[in-house]
Amino acid sequence: MVDDPPAKTVIDPFGTTVIEDYERLYQEFGIQPFKPLLDQIPDPSAAMRRGVIFGHRDLERVLTAMKNDQEFAVMSGIKPTMEFHLGTLQTAREVIYFQQHGAKAFYCIADVEAYEDNGIPFERSQKYAVGNVADLLALGFDPQKGFIYQQSKETRVKDLAIRFSRGVTLATMKAIYGERHMGLYLSALIQAGDILLPQLEEFGGPKPTVVPVGIDQDPHLRLTRDLAFKFRRKYNFVPPSSTYHKLIKGLDGSPKMSKRNPMTYFTLQESPEVISKKILMSFTGGRPTAEEQRRLGANPDICPIYDLYLFHFFERDEDVAKLYDYECKGGKILCGEDKQRLIRIVTEFVKEHQRKRRQYIDKAKEILNVE
Amino acid sequence: MVDDPPAKTVIDPFGTTVIEDYERLYQEFGIQPFKPLLDQIPDPSAAMRRGVIFGHRDLERVLTAMKNDQEFAVMSGIKPTMEFHLGTLQTAREVIYFQQHGAKAFYCIADVEAYEDNGIPFERSQKYAVGNVADLLALGFDPQKGFIYQQSKETRVKDLAIRFSRGVTLATMKAIYGERHMGLYLSALIQAGDILLPQLEEFGGPKPTVVPVGIDQDPHLRLTRDLAFKFRRKYNFVPPSSTYHKLIKGLDGSPKMSKRNPMTYFTLQESPEVISKKILMSFTGGRPTAEEQRRLGANPDICPIYDLYLFHFFERDEDVAKLYDYECKGGKILCGEDKQRLIRIVTEFVKEHQRKRRQYIDKAKEILNVE
Repeated sequence: MVDDPPAKTVIDPFGTTVIEDYERLYQEFGIQPFKPLLDQIPDPSAAMRRGVIFGHRDLERVLTAMKNDQEFAVMSGIKPTMEFHLGTLQTAREVIYFQQHGAKAFYCIADVEAYEDNGIPFERSQKYAVGNVADLLALGFDPQKGFIYQQSKETRVKDLAIRFSRGVTLATMKAIYGERHMGLYLSALIQAGDILLPQLEEFGGPKPTVVPVGIDQDPHLRLTRDLAFKFRRKYNFVPPSSTYHKLIKGLDGSPKMSKRNPMTYFTLQESPEVISKKILMSFTGGRPTAEEQRRLGANPDICPIYDLYLFHFFERDEDVAKLYDYECKGGKILCGEDKQRLIRIVTEFVKEHQRKRRQYIDKAKEILNVE
Repeated sequence: MVDDPPAKTVIDPFGTTVIEDYERLYQEFGIQPFKPLLDQIPDPSAAMRRGVIFGHRDLERVLTAMKNDQEFAVMSGIKPTMEFHLGTLQTAREVIYFQQHGAKAFYCIADVEAYEDNGIPFERSQKYAVGNVADLLALGFDPQKGFIYQQSKETRVKDLAIRFSRGVTLATMKAIYGERHMGLYLSALIQAGDILLPQLEEFGGPKPTVVPVGIDQDPHLRLTRDLAFKFRRKYNFVPPSSTYHKLIKGLDGSPKMSKRNPMTYFTLQESPEVISKKILMSFTGGRPTAEEQRRLGANPDICPIYDLYLFHFFERDEDVAKLYDYECKGGKILCGEDKQRLIRIVTEFVKEHQRKRRQYIDKAKEILNVE
């Protein structure tokens, strides 16, 4: 008897994350499946309903607060190294969902991480930050009910990192992140500060907090939950909860869009023409010939075009289901047509988004205190 | 032929430093002997003249600035974990010496290090900090020509640490400091920020800077010089210079006063009675009987009482020389008499210092912005 080789599961916030087997995340990393909670959520988002959000840690605590009208927070952010892309769009929508359902919302511009991890000078990341915040506002984030900040300018998160560092051995850092330069370790400690910031006295003290992230960010959650426990006497922290979304496939069919290859993704600031071209050139789950596709159907499970509909561009779940089973697997649509339809939807969305975003640039500058 | 075992030389800013062979420091650690520079110093301090300051790195650069009336800085500090003792007194005097000879003086209250290394909460170290600053002022530090600050409140040193951390591999940290918790590494990076703070634009930009420290602090200098080089393009840093003083022996005859054993040292805030008792109970380099001592002489090289005269309590070099050769080695004084004389000098100094210090408490609070 020969066992199958174990599926490759690597979670690395500073590198490549490959998840070939979500079951293993549940079993080995202690992440809980999201689906059983779906019934308890009054008004689940599309990402929740469609399994894009597939896992969580301790989300029950946040749902209880939501149900009982108790104070809770949502916290996430962006690394300001480029324009909004589909991954940051995903996170932003999740933050906005919880904000619209009663959370105090915290959105961090992780410029220290952009510097430590990517070497982006603070002057440069600041420019991206303005655009990123305008995107967030255009998507519906309400700054009146939220706190948007840059790590480099927020003394409290840096000071939390200083406090926390005494509680972290080198062995812990190496176990979680591997052997890295000091900047990445410090950046991880500052992110623990970000995640626990909503619980400081000046923000109303300890409270359930949900951190919606891509699964690649889970190591930060593990570190932070450990620190929340270690420093519970001083701060009385509630361990942070988290939700995990799947990573959208790269347009070349690879498991993740990659900043290094611009043909694997598009940003919300690219022109509709460029985006259309990228979609046209995208890999699909289609068959070699139209005849075969009509006869055998295509494979949505490996298709980035399907992912785009699923994650972002079909509003109605029925349309997703119909695409998956009937149109795609049933061979009722050819990839060319499917791409043309997607291009129409994306173009409309991007044009409208870009129009709104322009109106929010001044507000974004004001929030970030930038000239 | 059998070699002697090598003398034990361990330099550890967070642990025990043992220097049994100063020659090895010159040969192996790249520290230069101080003595050859003595002629070039217009008005050397007692510690310089007497060899208490025994080594340096690149001090020539600072001496050139002094000679040519160019801008230069002196930077050092204290870990606010207790009252001023004889080691911090030594450093303070060295800072004040350079301040009085034209340096912009920077004095850091290393409360982050007190927290990371000793677990002293910031609230507690703040109390010590007020007293420490009052001591510094009573000793003659001119706050008009200097900058006194707490690490925890000085954003610029924390931000320098964040910048620098990207330039430091884990291997470098381990080579310099050994395997430590993250807090000590972060603390070391913040100290690199302290040392380079005088060279930021807001303090007049790059300039020669001398850091007078005990030899145990040299690892911080090595790290900082490396960082000054790595970040030279952005900041145009001049590599910091340093001077090294010997560590005064513990009153029990051990190579270093130890905070863990209060009978090995006294602070400037202890009562003259307690200090007198500690001096009376001190180890000496004396002989078992008065007769033997008169006949053979005693050994000042192993004697903490001699160290006290040498480092701090004889103003005139002639008195030190006379004590060493004639009185002590020549058997002309017994340890009891010698201690009584020291007690009279120390008592007078401490009473006068405590009187002055009380007058500076309010000023110290003002400087530290403490109620």
